[in-house]
Amino acid sequence: MEYSSKYLEKAVEEISGLPGIGKKTALRLALHLLREEESATQHLAQSLLDLKEKVKHCKSCGNISDSQLCDICAHPGRQKDLVCIVEDIRDVMAIENTGQYKGIYHVLGGLISPMDGIGPNDLNIEMLVNKVAEGQIHELIFGLSTTMEGETTAFYLFKRLADFKGKLSAIARGIAVGDQLEYADEVTLARSIVNRVPYEKSIEQNS
Amino acid sequence: MEYSSKYLEKAVEEISGLPGIGKKTALRLALHLLREEESATQHLAQSLLDLKEKVKHCKSCGNISDSQLCDICAHPGRQKDLVCIVEDIRDVMAIENTGQYKGIYHVLGGLISPMDGIGPNDLNIEMLVNKVAEGQIHELIFGLSTTMEGETTAFYLFKRLADFKGKLSAIARGIAVGDQLEYADEVTLARSIVNRVPYEKSIEQNS
Repeated sequence: MEYSSKYLEKAVEEISGLPGIGKKTALRLALHLLREEESATQHLAQSLLDLKEKVKHCKSCGNISDSQLCDICAHPGRQKDLVCIVEDIRDVMAIENTGQYKGIYHVLGGLISPMDGIGPNDLNIEMLVNKVAEGQIHELIFGLSTTMEGETTAFYLFKRLADFKGKLSAIARGIAVGDQLEYADEVTLARSIVNRVPYEKSIEQNS
Repeated sequence: MEYSSKYLEKAVEEISGLPGIGKKTALRLALHLLREEESATQHLAQSLLDLKEKVKHCKSCGNISDSQLCDICAHPGRQKDLVCIVEDIRDVMAIENTGQYKGIYHVLGGLISPMDGIGPNDLNIEMLVNKVAEGQIHELIFGLSTTMEGETTAFYLFKRLADFKGKLSAIARGIAVGDQLEYADEVTLARSIVNRVPYEKSIEQNS
């Protein structure tokens, strides 16, 4: 494609560099910005610069934060000896939305993925190992995805945390609430049978 | 959703203001930028600001351009008395890619769409009426989409250009090259029969 303006071409090139956005979508977005008020583009550009410049990482858990310590780590009501290990802030937000978790998090910032060139050193793992070595943690929960990368990362952490004396757990895998058994895949169904819970506990959670 | 950083929240809000991008995609893009080099975000933001600040509209055809006159209008080899009326720069690029058109364009910058609050005054129509009034144009081609908005715009232009003495034409509608007749919709098939072309002309174009 040949663009009639090199600024348009440059903008399309930059926008299509974002993941999941192709040249056609980028051109559509650029033309949208051209039609809008100038202030809309300025606000967008400024918000991106601010994002990159001002966002910090919590020095305790690695989560995205505006201050040295994120709101969750700084909250006095949170159980500091219960740590859930997650991939990124989206998982933190998903678990927070349930309102069922009272501990703190440890955000790895990704998963081990040799295919994408991401090794253990690219992740926020040393901070976790150091935190565990301090001996204040009572339970560690693996809250990672059940993908190849998630399982690899969990296994690597399991090895690295061999000296951990507390309880190690993983979030439960099973049939989603509202799902029908016949449509569940075999692996999930098998896990949900092996890891069955007492019936009293199950009905307690439904009410 | 509650974000742990107000800068992240602001960026997600701005990005999801773009057409076709929701909150989840916006968060994914923002997290991508956070993981990338700072220069990547700076280049993206700068390209958006440049786009809005430096891109001009050709004073002859209304197309996006870096100078007063776009490359097509400024080209000495282009037939200045043959004008194709199109919706926006994407249509110009599509027709240019065929390499079959030697005339110039007139870019409306949109289509009449009462549903979206776009009337004739929001489009680049006066410039076209003035250009036609100068009496230098020999043929006007309607190159608009066959949508309700496209047809409405074409009809409005047809009325406004009632004094035009030259030839008025519209791009041909018919079965796409490579398509099978049985799968074509009735309206398209009907038009392709009514507007049939001499066989010799048809095979000439195939070779």
